[in-house]
Amino acid sequence: MSTTLVTNITNLVTNDPALGEGPLGQIQDAAVVLDGDRIAWVGQAKDAPEADRAHDAEGRSAIPGFVDSHSHLVFAGDRTQEFNARMEGRSYSAGGIRTTVAATRAASDEELEANLLRYLREAARQGTTVFETKSGYGLTVEDEARALRIAARHTDEVTFLGAHIVSPDFADDPAGYVDLVTGAMLDACAPHARWVDVFCEKGAFDGDQARAILTAGVAKGLLPRVHANQLSYGPGVQLAVGLDAASADHCTHLTDADVDALAHGNTVATLLPGAEFSTRAEWPDARRLLDAGATVALSTDCNPGSSFTSSMPFCIALAVRDMGMTPDEALWAATAGGARALRRTDVGRVTPGARADLALLDAPSHVHLAYRPGVPLVREVWQRGTLLG
Amino acid sequence: MSTTLVTNITNLVTNDPALGEGPLGQIQDAAVVLDGDRIAWVGQAKDAPEADRAHDAEGRSAIPGFVDSHSHLVFAGDRTQEFNARMEGRSYSAGGIRTTVAATRAASDEELEANLLRYLREAARQGTTVFETKSGYGLTVEDEARALRIAARHTDEVTFLGAHIVSPDFADDPAGYVDLVTGAMLDACAPHARWVDVFCEKGAFDGDQARAILTAGVAKGLLPRVHANQLSYGPGVQLAVGLDAASADHCTHLTDADVDALAHGNTVATLLPGAEFSTRAEWPDARRLLDAGATVALSTDCNPGSSFTSSMPFCIALAVRDMGMTPDEALWAATAGGARALRRTDVGRVTPGARADLALLDAPSHVHLAYRPGVPLVREVWQRGTLLG
Ligand SMILES: [Zn+2]
Ligand SMILES: [Zn+2]
Repeated sequence: MSTTLVTNITNLVTNDPALGEGPLGQIQDAAVVLDGDRIAWVGQAKDAPEADRAHDAEGRSAIPGFVDSHSHLVFAGDRTQEFNARMEGRSYSAGGIRTTVAATRAASDEELEANLLRYLREAARQGTTVFETKSGYGLTVEDEARALRIAARHTDEVTFLGAHIVSPDFADDPAGYVDLVTGAMLDACAPHARWVDVFCEKGAFDGDQARAILTAGVAKGLLPRVHANQLSYGPGVQLAVGLDAASADHCTHLTDADVDALAHGNTVATLLPGAEFSTRAEWPDARRLLDAGATVALSTDCNPGSSFTSSMPFCIALAVRDMGMTPDEALWAATAGGARALRRTDVGRVTPGARADLALLDAPSHVHLAYRPGVPLVREVWQRGTLLG
Repeated sequence: MSTTLVTNITNLVTNDPALGEGPLGQIQDAAVVLDGDRIAWVGQAKDAPEADRAHDAEGRSAIPGFVDSHSHLVFAGDRTQEFNARMEGRSYSAGGIRTTVAATRAASDEELEANLLRYLREAARQGTTVFETKSGYGLTVEDEARALRIAARHTDEVTFLGAHIVSPDFADDPAGYVDLVTGAMLDACAPHARWVDVFCEKGAFDGDQARAILTAGVAKGLLPRVHANQLSYGPGVQLAVGLDAASADHCTHLTDADVDALAHGNTVATLLPGAEFSTRAEWPDARRLLDAGATVALSTDCNPGSSFTSSMPFCIALAVRDMGMTPDEALWAATAGGARALRRTDVGRVTPGARADLALLDAPSHVHLAYRPGVPLVREVWQRGTLLG
């Protein structure tokens, strides 16, 4: 292992208050020493130890790589026509998720993997160094399992979402589909996944179905997370907290009891503003959650239907403008918050022993991610100690 | 002059309905021949003539380079603290535009030019091949003239905006400042500018002052454009149309009579959604303007106070989500519309004889600029026939 000194960083966010100023643990005129795929040292540049080589950050600011804890990237096709129709206020009869299911089933493994890699590289160029991704566009035993096999080649954070919608093959027998998901499909999928997820919503899976699916997944060794309270009030958040899920995702429609449960439980509220942006929906209220004491994460929900953005900086800008987060809170939520939502302590922070994931910004600090919306400010990305090309 | 064939373009927007389908004149499986800094030929790849060399677009889509007809890029400093305060709902007593005026006056010519170049390169990487920029952070004869001299080294579209705000040096004598702007300042500035502009708004310049300033500029050979109806209803739009200004910019608060004037006059309504995004203000209603028959352009208003984005794709995404534009209308407004707002016919279109400005997108069509918000989709930019590095 050789060591690299990344120096001349005008402002570094460590996310460790013990290492620097404020809740983000910021260090001015900072340096970081990378040793292989780990961070070996963090501090002021003037105090930096020797290293095998030096890399000049040229006065850029630096943050932990983004942790995108919610995406749907194993799919084929896109839904441009549906997007166009929605933006023009026209109804669009064809398919929604079903359109992507049909395209995904028809695609070869090679096509699906090439598509996944394309979006992963796109996200990495924007500073995302850890991402979670899900199945959910196969909805057969074989198609769900192959989505997870393909995803598992590229990330440790793989989620079984056979319960995305009721498969069109079971339109008249939703209970039969739940039996399949909790039976043969789970058996085929569990070996390739870390997480089990369910879309708990009117028109998808109700509270009892969701509980059955998550409980079955947990019995097979998977950890639960939940698509909860996106389109309407419902039981998803309470179910997630009750099952000690790592995250309840969306959290757009919350009662006071839901907020209270999140504030007192061990479940992160993961907010996905790309979905509200792209569907012109009501924003989740991050301020209410933060003021109550809940832990908030930000993620992209990148998928071809309701949120086709891979940009964590874009999500930060929306969270600051429309969800009541400060730039500091949004940065934390997109890094350390995402790590918390994946129950990871080795990422989302720039501290000795953490994974050597860093994003360098063409800006004096992370505040510019909200202050300069839409501008691609991420200039260099280090992932596991390697500078991405 | 040597010729270059750019081929294998999956979808090309020409903005000439005679060249292809629909109002954007789209061509599938297209190619473009560049001859020096001009476009020599446009059509289907299978019909393309020979050229000295070929460049493979690898199935990307292509659009005319963006024409950003409204920016404020000759400045120093930034206003991160003010942005932070605004986002947190705290009042922030210090300065606004005055903060930037003080920093700009204190900066050297070299600093101002380096800053300008940095933002121009940033914009170019995002597909902007033509930009207008303004003075307005000097507010003395010398400081305004040097801003324009510096800007004129880098663009033909230079605007004298001595009437941005009343100079703090004339706080007790606004009439005296108008005399300066229309007198010695105009004399010093007119040789370096093409346009004269005024911020017609309560707290800045009223209708009579704005008319005096624009009329004086026109008498010196400058062409008028107006910051109109941004923060409140007012006389700006009517003044702009009455003076046959090329553009009335902002147009957020319009009466029916204002819309009617824009629909029947020769003045473009330039909408600047970055400003509404970054100040959490009410959106301009593009749909109302388009339905009335007005010509709409989109621009960034890039400046360190109210809209620090240089991203035309971001403005397109906002215009589609929040201002009632279709993806096609927004693309047109950000290219041909911007050209119209600068009274230019040689840019904003991909047609034989036009300037060889093209942006290639990592996407099957321009619709993805709205469908994939925040994602840096611009992959290659050709400006005056040169591929930017
Ligand atoms: Zn999702
Ligand atoms: Zn302006």
